[in-house]
Amino acid sequence: MKIEFWMVGKTSFPYLNEGVPIYEKRITRYIPFQSQVIPDIKNAKNMPAAQLKEKEGQAILDKLNKEDFLILLDEKGKSFSSVAFAQQLDQYLLRSNKRLIFLIGGAFGFSEAVYARANQKISLSKMTFSHQMIRLFFVEQLYRAFSILRKEPYHNE
Amino acid sequence: MKIEFWMVGKTSFPYLNEGVPIYEKRITRYIPFQSQVIPDIKNAKNMPAAQLKEKEGQAILDKLNKEDFLILLDEKGKSFSSVAFAQQLDQYLLRSNKRLIFLIGGAFGFSEAVYARANQKISLSKMTFSHQMIRLFFVEQLYRAFSILRKEPYHNE
Repeated sequence: MKIEFWMVGKTSFPYLNEGVPIYEKRITRYIPFQSQVIPDIKNAKNMPAAQLKEKEGQAILDKLNKEDFLILLDEKGKSFSSVAFAQQLDQYLLRSNKRLIFLIGGAFGFSEAVYARANQKISLSKMTFSHQMIRLFFVEQLYRAFSILRKEPYHNE
Repeated sequence: MKIEFWMVGKTSFPYLNEGVPIYEKRITRYIPFQSQVIPDIKNAKNMPAAQLKEKEGQAILDKLNKEDFLILLDEKGKSFSSVAFAQQLDQYLLRSNKRLIFLIGGAFGFSEAVYARANQKISLSKMTFSHQMIRLFFVEQLYRAFSILRKEPYHNE
């Protein structure tokens, strides 16, 4: 089992490029883990939102294998407490040898084709956060989930 | 009306010291805003959690005026969508000239005395996040709330 974390578009905030790897590195203590940025679509600024979502969606689908288990981080997804999320993660890890892919979309969200392909949708909060900041929230939460499963103290450092 | 943002204890993560001020600065475009760190209690490491919470609580209460409207950012609080949070904020701002204080506690949360003094409790997520990272989530969300109230586009930069 391997966890991958995909996100659409480079982040323009240096503090996120600093913060996210702190937790990514911690996660690799527990499981093979890799993150990748799906490159920004060219000429995105001159493109209607619907078309941009479509193109981003195609780029995502092109990268997926049939067996991948795809989880969208999506406002419309199911919300969990941290402990419930850890238990859900444990279930995924037990039941399959597939790649487990967590995906954060671009500024306009996911295309219909990506929704149709997804195996699960998870929401981190009822609130809307920037799709860039959510990267940080997610890696901290994934790290926390492993620390919960291993019964390790993670004292809100 | 003035908004203050209080948090217990210095952050040890440089990326947070970089990220939080980005949004704080944006908030000051809309309203007088000030953040302050309530200093760590001395010898905290050798103190039982309950005693530490008590001492932190006392330091908080000492800083409050009777008229302050105190909102705890607390897992047990009410959760809002970003739009609902903006509307709630609008209500607060309309109805009073008091200081509106948002407070993030220390690693062990709030003392009973602080809970008793609070006017409102708000939860940013069902998930537990580190009490340091939540600072970043909150300032982004407060900035987003003003951009919603002013009907300004805030395109998940």
